[in-house]
Amino acid sequence: MENRITELFKIKYPIVQGGMVWCSGYKLAAAVSNAGGLGLLGAGSMYPEVLKEHIQKIKKATNKPYGVNVPLMYPDMEKILELIIAEKVPIVFTSAGNPKTWTKTLHDAGIVVAHVVANTRFALKCEEAGVDAIVAEGFEAGGHNGREETTTLCLIPQIRKAIKTPLIAAGGIGSGQAMAAAFALGAEGVQIGSRFAAAMESSAHPDFKNEIVKAQEGDTKLTLKKLAPVRLLNNRFYKQVLNYELQGASPEEFQVLLGKGRAKKGMFEGDVKDGELEIGQVSALINKIQPVQEIMDEVISDFNATTLNLAKLSL
Amino acid sequence: MENRITELFKIKYPIVQGGMVWCSGYKLAAAVSNAGGLGLLGAGSMYPEVLKEHIQKIKKATNKPYGVNVPLMYPDMEKILELIIAEKVPIVFTSAGNPKTWTKTLHDAGIVVAHVVANTRFALKCEEAGVDAIVAEGFEAGGHNGREETTTLCLIPQIRKAIKTPLIAAGGIGSGQAMAAAFALGAEGVQIGSRFAAAMESSAHPDFKNEIVKAQEGDTKLTLKKLAPVRLLNNRFYKQVLNYELQGASPEEFQVLLGKGRAKKGMFEGDVKDGELEIGQVSALINKIQPVQEIMDEVISDFNATTLNLAKLSL
Repeated sequence: MENRITELFKIKYPIVQGGMVWCSGYKLAAAVSNAGGLGLLGAGSMYPEVLKEHIQKIKKATNKPYGVNVPLMYPDMEKILELIIAEKVPIVFTSAGNPKTWTKTLHDAGIVVAHVVANTRFALKCEEAGVDAIVAEGFEAGGHNGREETTTLCLIPQIRKAIKTPLIAAGGIGSGQAMAAAFALGAEGVQIGSRFAAAMESSAHPDFKNEIVKAQEGDTKLTLKKLAPVRLLNNRFYKQVLNYELQGASPEEFQVLLGKGRAKKGMFEGDVKDGELEIGQVSALINKIQPVQEIMDEVISDFNATTLNLAKLSL
Repeated sequence: MENRITELFKIKYPIVQGGMVWCSGYKLAAAVSNAGGLGLLGAGSMYPEVLKEHIQKIKKATNKPYGVNVPLMYPDMEKILELIIAEKVPIVFTSAGNPKTWTKTLHDAGIVVAHVVANTRFALKCEEAGVDAIVAEGFEAGGHNGREETTTLCLIPQIRKAIKTPLIAAGGIGSGQAMAAAFALGAEGVQIGSRFAAAMESSAHPDFKNEIVKAQEGDTKLTLKKLAPVRLLNNRFYKQVLNYELQGASPEEFQVLLGKGRAKKGMFEGDVKDGELEIGQVSALINKIQPVQEIMDEVISDFNATTLNLAKLSL
């Protein structure tokens, strides 16, 4: 398949690996790029010097295109951008902020820019800002998420109708079947997060990966809506959060409960009871830790089988 | 297309119209059945004598198969079941209760039984109870919904994996594209609610239909989680509910706020400010009031175009 997404990123398959905090180091991103997808480093959990190290390592680990995901509320944005430009990173995915702020700077440096949104309003802003691709992320996605709670099934057709820019679907996609569903809705590429978070090459703590594998239906919830909505996996910390929500705690009380470094504690250091475990609903469908190549092979073969089956259906 | 759903219900298209309270009278159900889908009367908002009248009217309005949706927490269940059996209704969709309670009684009367679930645990119960088809309804669906908040994109593959019974997807489906997506995920039929609620033949108040047409992204939310989760459309009543939730109100306080007859007031009598308006997220994609035949034609033609397009995609 060749389409606008494979052409834009110069990749073989229109499959992007989510640039997730604490999971997406150079090993994961390089493995995905080497397998024909687009690997992304997750700058959201890296100090500038750590990101620099990962960029330099991924350049040695793959000669395929790769990118960096940068949450725009990052405290050290200027430094990060300078570094990305100096290191000649070819692709940047921005998220959690206004796409207008940095797109021109990145374009001027010859960088391809995608931006992550959870609603049509921001997708339109992306188009105005001239971003090259839009990632539309539904309610079922792990980690930070939109306030509208629009699911991928409803979000993709809405954004498809509103914009002409190449569109990547995210949230709830961990299989070739879900990828085919996203394409049916109008997406031209998919972003897969949770399934790659549990991959062998992910930098997530092994105990967190095991929690992803054990996760069942209903084990994640969109929480912390009074601060910024985030989808978390069921553990002791999550139960505290839900309790606070039932009791109508104030944003300040949530802030105290959250404290600092909760996500690192859970996802990277493996405190799976009291750490913050960001993961998608699709974790209920993930039941083993696999190497990236195996995941890619399965997604591709399931996608092909699914589209072939659908081809036989006509009303 | 012929598959297990068309064969089971003896219908032309595997498209079921949701049996929605205050919307699904005999006119809507007969129109859907006449157009080759399966029309359902929504018994949830009918006294036994009203249901009897609608059953007798639908028999005159169509010679195609039709069904009745019965929420199992209905206060007058025995009477309703007696009536359904006496009137020789061919198909019953049960919801909001244990599928074991009534399936045998209905089967003994020669009635085809489908049951609506929002999680795999209940889908397995359905299979044990021997129901003939399962409707799996995702988080984006309007009205009453599951506590797990699993979206259609994540729910369908989970239930597909767990059961062998014919599977109908519901929640977020109002187009042929979404129908194709549901089939990619393993569904063999779809249930369409919101789009038919806004159909010309729906018994919903015209002012409620206009609100559905006006609805934008983010205008529905799953609310009343301390009682039974229900997806509502943004209006004055909904804002009160959200406020109560932010403040951590008790179930008793919610009960007082809700009062009696709120859904009838909004959906049937047209008090769109203070009534309870149950509708799905997909309302943001619905932008006109159409006759049922036109909706069916569009869904069918979009489904065919979508599967044809997907057929060309191979990785």
